[in-house]
Amino acid sequence: MKRQNARTLALIICTFTYLIVGAAIFDALESRTETTQRSELHQRKVGLLKTFNLSTEDFDELEKVVLQRKPHKAGVQWKFAGSFYFAITVITTIGYGHAAPSTDGGKVFCMLYALLGIPLTLVMFQSVGERINTFVRYLLHRLKKCLGMRHTEVSMANMVIIGFISCMSTLCVGALAFSHFEGWSFFHAYYYCFITLTTIGFGDYVALQNKHALQTKPEYVAFSFIYILTGLAVIGAFLNLAVLRFMTMNAEDEKRDAEHRALLARNGSAVGGSGGGGASRGLQNVYAEVLHFQSMCSCLWYKSNEKLEYSIPMIIPHDLSTSDTEAFSNPFQSNGCVCSEQHHSGISSVSTGLHSFSTYRRLNKRRSSI
Amino acid sequence: MKRQNARTLALIICTFTYLIVGAAIFDALESRTETTQRSELHQRKVGLLKTFNLSTEDFDELEKVVLQRKPHKAGVQWKFAGSFYFAITVITTIGYGHAAPSTDGGKVFCMLYALLGIPLTLVMFQSVGERINTFVRYLLHRLKKCLGMRHTEVSMANMVIIGFISCMSTLCVGALAFSHFEGWSFFHAYYYCFITLTTIGFGDYVALQNKHALQTKPEYVAFSFIYILTGLAVIGAFLNLAVLRFMTMNAEDEKRDAEHRALLARNGSAVGGSGGGGASRGLQNVYAEVLHFQSMCSCLWYKSNEKLEYSIPMIIPHDLSTSDTEAFSNPFQSNGCVCSEQHHSGISSVSTGLHSFSTYRRLNKRRSSI
Repeated sequence: MKRQNARTLALIICTFTYLIVGAAIFDALESRTETTQRSELHQRKVGLLKTFNLSTEDFDELEKVVLQRKPHKAGVQWKFAGSFYFAITVITTIGYGHAAPSTDGGKVFCMLYALLGIPLTLVMFQSVGERINTFVRYLLHRLKKCLGMRHTEVSMANMVIIGFISCMSTLCVGALAFSHFEGWSFFHAYYYCFITLTTIGFGDYVALQNKHALQTKPEYVAFSFIYILTGLAVIGAFLNLAVLRFMTMNAEDEKRDAEHRALLARNGSAVGGSGGGGASRGLQNVYAEVLHFQSMCSCLWYKSNEKLEYSIPMIIPHDLSTSDTEAFSNPFQSNGCVCSEQHHSGISSVSTGLHSFSTYRRLNKRRSSI
Repeated sequence: MKRQNARTLALIICTFTYLIVGAAIFDALESRTETTQRSELHQRKVGLLKTFNLSTEDFDELEKVVLQRKPHKAGVQWKFAGSFYFAITVITTIGYGHAAPSTDGGKVFCMLYALLGIPLTLVMFQSVGERINTFVRYLLHRLKKCLGMRHTEVSMANMVIIGFISCMSTLCVGALAFSHFEGWSFFHAYYYCFITLTTIGFGDYVALQNKHALQTKPEYVAFSFIYILTGLAVIGAFLNLAVLRFMTMNAEDEKRDAEHRALLARNGSAVGGSGGGGASRGLQNVYAEVLHFQSMCSCLWYKSNEKLEYSIPMIIPHDLSTSDTEAFSNPFQSNGCVCSEQHHSGISSVSTGLHSFSTYRRLNKRRSSI
């Protein structure tokens, strides 16, 4: 089975399994409390009906008004500040639902607004995230130099650790702030920040809904907006670092397969071609070699030894020191790619156009992760 | 200013402007209705207090019970079916909020569950989306062949149109189904599907909350889950096609800049190097040439003429017909990359290691879009 198909199938099975396991655990954690709460609330309802001498129909009428009043109780939702807050929840896909368009025109515009706004925001946060990562990588490299460390390259592990610490810090800062402003416990405020910055946005906790804050506390409103957008950028940076590469795996494998087919086709015609001239065949072999270089060397970009990503761009012949490389005794190899020792045999054999493909296949184990 | 920084700044400004414009429009669309509804609901509340002889404190007590009863009224939320539904809303980040963990243990597990589940789901949907796109591309190519069309390559425009039609169809199918099962209008069901499949998930409309459907209608429950997951895959395919490439732009520019620096460094030492031997310099020039090929030819992957993406992998020397290419009179060029005519002059001059950089820079205008 083609690698991309196997990978996709494995991911589907993993996700489905993850859902089943999650459902079982949520059931175990919440089900009993739900049953208890349901019965308690039923008792309270019955008690209130008796106390206030209300029928079930009376209660239903009161219930309708209460539910419709809920967003209004929290304050004015659709003046500029509230609308800006809502617009943020749309294009970031947080979607608390604390306010939702009640007019059909509002719903139509909301859909059109999201259609353009969501991709724009996705690209923006990834762009900002990449810049943050590049800057952090640069700072860390300079710091290592200043500290006089022997290896000043910034590894993927370094970046992931820093990214993780940044995310945790962002959540803690938000938790402190919102617990103070909203009167929540630190844990509930942390939970709110987490649910917000992952864009899940349940809406069980929503900032700026107490004491008409949207109209009466402009500094707190500004802080909340800045916090949400900055926090999403920090999370975006971490996703850009740790997850984005996995989202392009299939496309890159397709590209490499296409190059492989091209190489096969070219070498097939080079070997079998009748006339055409020695010069033309020579050129074809050069291109086969280029393709081969390209296929092998592109693996460098994804090697877990990410020092290459920062200080040593692809195919820097020397000054390479990676834990993956064999001893550089071969002068050609010391100037070449560092995928494996087979590199050398692969290069010299490409000109025949035959042997290279077994080498190419061995070198195709580009990613250690799925 | 570096291109990546300029791009990021432009995106930030665009997004901020988009938010301001959106806020103004939502204000205009919803504010008046909100004011009217608020005053109507206030009148109704006053009326009900009078009718049922309730004080404001009595009403507050009833209000508390009504709001707490809301999720319970919709049915049992935390048995396996409901928990599975909730788990879907977590890892897909839809996050309706129709049910949210009430226990602290549930909240903690929810965060941990999302921490692993969201990246897994992102990668899974992108993987499935890429497979869908590849398959559709293949089908369309075969269809064009069967219809005897002259140009059988599948362009980006073809794929975007098909992707858009698929998304619209998915939304319409869902709208028909949910309007039937939930008793919503077609428009409101369409709005629900849109808000769900974009993962905004306000929670103003939530399927499976009527008539205890989660416990009493297993086929409808299964349909809803399958619809949500399949619909997200279709949207994911469209995002994979149209948006993902823009999310990696900065990283690719960084990579290319690094390669450029390497080329400069290598050619600088090649020109200025004292001894070292002709063989070593020859090898260095080969690598400079490889880098040069790579830089130039990688532009092919992103050319808007996406026929190259499917039927013509990178550096297929002949059978290339693109609107971007000059007449292939030069035999060398007809076997080479098709970025531009400068290719030939670039290649022959790389061995001096000097002229190629102006060529490289001209060819650096890889993406027409920001």
